[in-house]
Amino acid sequence: MATYKLLLLPGDGIGTEVMAEVKRLIAWMNQHGLGTFETEEGLVGGAAYDAEGVAISDATMARAQASDAVIFGAVGGPKWADVPYEARPEAGLLRLRKDLALYANLRPAICYPALADASSLKREVVDGLDIMIVRELTGGVYFGEPKTIVDLGNGQKRAIDTQVYDTYEIERIGRVAFELARKRRNKVASMEKRNVMKSGVLWNEVMTALHAREFKDVELEHVLADAGGMQLVRWPKQFDVIVTDNLFGDLLSDVASMLTGSLGMLPSASLGDVDPATGTRKSMYEPVHGSAPDIQGKGIANPIAMLASFAMALRYSFGLGKEADFIETAIANTLDKGLRTADIKSEGTTVVGTREMGQAVIDEV
Amino acid sequence: MATYKLLLLPGDGIGTEVMAEVKRLIAWMNQHGLGTFETEEGLVGGAAYDAEGVAISDATMARAQASDAVIFGAVGGPKWADVPYEARPEAGLLRLRKDLALYANLRPAICYPALADASSLKREVVDGLDIMIVRELTGGVYFGEPKTIVDLGNGQKRAIDTQVYDTYEIERIGRVAFELARKRRNKVASMEKRNVMKSGVLWNEVMTALHAREFKDVELEHVLADAGGMQLVRWPKQFDVIVTDNLFGDLLSDVASMLTGSLGMLPSASLGDVDPATGTRKSMYEPVHGSAPDIQGKGIANPIAMLASFAMALRYSFGLGKEADFIETAIANTLDKGLRTADIKSEGTTVVGTREMGQAVIDEV
Ligand SMILES: CC(C)[C@H](C(=O)O)[C@@H](O)C(=O)O
Ligand SMILES: CC(C)[C@H](C(=O)O)[C@@H](O)C(=O)O
Repeated sequence: MATYKLLLLPGDGIGTEVMAEVKRLIAWMNQHGLGTFETEEGLVGGAAYDAEGVAISDATMARAQASDAVIFGAVGGPKWADVPYEARPEAGLLRLRKDLALYANLRPAICYPALADASSLKREVVDGLDIMIVRELTGGVYFGEPKTIVDLGNGQKRAIDTQVYDTYEIERIGRVAFELARKRRNKVASMEKRNVMKSGVLWNEVMTALHAREFKDVELEHVLADAGGMQLVRWPKQFDVIVTDNLFGDLLSDVASMLTGSLGMLPSASLGDVDPATGTRKSMYEPVHGSAPDIQGKGIANPIAMLASFAMALRYSFGLGKEADFIETAIANTLDKGLRTADIKSEGTTVVGTREMGQAVIDEV
Repeated sequence: MATYKLLLLPGDGIGTEVMAEVKRLIAWMNQHGLGTFETEEGLVGGAAYDAEGVAISDATMARAQASDAVIFGAVGGPKWADVPYEARPEAGLLRLRKDLALYANLRPAICYPALADASSLKREVVDGLDIMIVRELTGGVYFGEPKTIVDLGNGQKRAIDTQVYDTYEIERIGRVAFELARKRRNKVASMEKRNVMKSGVLWNEVMTALHAREFKDVELEHVLADAGGMQLVRWPKQFDVIVTDNLFGDLLSDVASMLTGSLGMLPSASLGDVDPATGTRKSMYEPVHGSAPDIQGKGIANPIAMLASFAMALRYSFGLGKEADFIETAIANTLDKGLRTADIKSEGTTVVGTREMGQAVIDEV
């Protein structure tokens, strides 16, 4: 059995708390011969800034490059509100995404049956929901230049951000979406604002051409991003795979998170291209939630998004789809038994902390 | 009593159908001495393109400049999918906003009690909801340059959009939001992405300074736009006034529309600065919904957003707040009686068409 090298970057706030549960899951899998994982740890975000003065050091980046997958917790918090922009905690996350060329961010939004009553939406709207948001992660307004604030004098400043997309960037994320759709319900909704943005015009054009050339068997629909946000709330089950740019993906996936009961449920995978020489790809796995400074240290954070992110690592980086299924089934079973962390509690369920929830999932695997 | 000059621009699709109801309301108000309105009509969007080859002609723009308020229907439709980008129907709307300098877009999201069950959200989440989204409307990525697609050769293109915000643009929209909050529940949530965008950094900085300088009595909260979208779905009643940029405002107001039962319920006002010489301001009123080509010609479009937009005109352009209240109460009463257009129908209600709904509201005024 191959040995996989994981770099764990717990980060800040509840990042370290939910990462602790993944560590125990990994130890358990190693013990039971379900994989051979070697782990090392590194600093990112505010923790890295406090220790090293940057949001992620070159040395940590080198270890990320050398690892088979990065497992990421969460970064940020009010403690670092005043650090220089370039060293803010989020900069560590953005550098990882960019330097590892992790252009494909997969954000599944699944409503576990046991949680169909936990969200603000009506049960029939979310029950059985299973959509996959494919967000472009290394382009657009997140990285385009110029990105600057200039002083115009007289107390006036001008802020500039630039959204840039090239054909090849749209094509490769489109390909990820279409290929995923083929293994699911064969439908892709591409979301942009072509009525206002030139990047939307190009996005639409490239998706249309790619579809006609390589994916005619998949159903493709173009949806304006604002209407898409609305439809996600109105009737989300109309969607299978949604593909969209970096900024729209950020917003739309947060909206989608509310369909699943809690942000604490949502895992994500960030993938680069498969290297034809080795057959491997750079990858990072992280929960969609943040560092939640308000509940930090209380031991009540929901570890499910983090554990489910590790399951995605098994599936997308190591070809261990069956083992990934085990973990996901274990999560569903734990919820079916009525165990809940505080963020997803409801009448008649048993509220437990991070550690108990993590242990309960491991016990189910 | 002053005479007000209105330019009606019905536009495309159901735009003309819902405008017909406003025309009848205006005639009724003129007859009953509730105002003196002179109306003229013009072409915009696809209708203007078909007749004049542009999305709005210079002549129509001149009439808009000379009017006391523009009442706008909706533009667009598949018929014009292939017209040149500069002449696409939306370009008419964008030119009106930009050339009339209508920088403040007010989008109230109110859940009428009678419709608390009509949305995809649970009753307790939306019942009694009353929030006001204040969207910046003449800046940001909608109008920043460069906005272009360049051919890089080898089948590669590059699309560029530019988000630009100057201090004064953020300040003036902030002022609108704070002043509105003072007449409401005294709370403003400012939404941006300062962790990724320089325009978010400046937005945050300007709002903070403006608040400290002139609006200390109002509660100000900074929310990341992605988290804001999530909170709008999770527990929208936490908000009073939301102030945000052009693009985030576009998305967030569409998400918010789903809290009210239907996009067919949402009015909007787009306002310029008050001219100190005349005490008047340029303004345009339009429903948030689009031209809905799928239901065009069927006589089933919901005219409430359009009628409520006219009520906003009375309040914000003509100082006729009491008359605006009459119309809004008439809408609530009509809904209480169980009358519904198809988009908001539910068990035990009576489904009526555009004309009957318009008449029912007028009868209630
Ligand atoms: C933390 C932040 C930079 C990040 C983003 O905007 O991408 C987060 O919101 C996310 O969605 O992963
Ligand atoms: C039609 C379109 C240009 C417009 C916008 O993006 O502003 C619409 O979506 C809106 O919200 O008024």
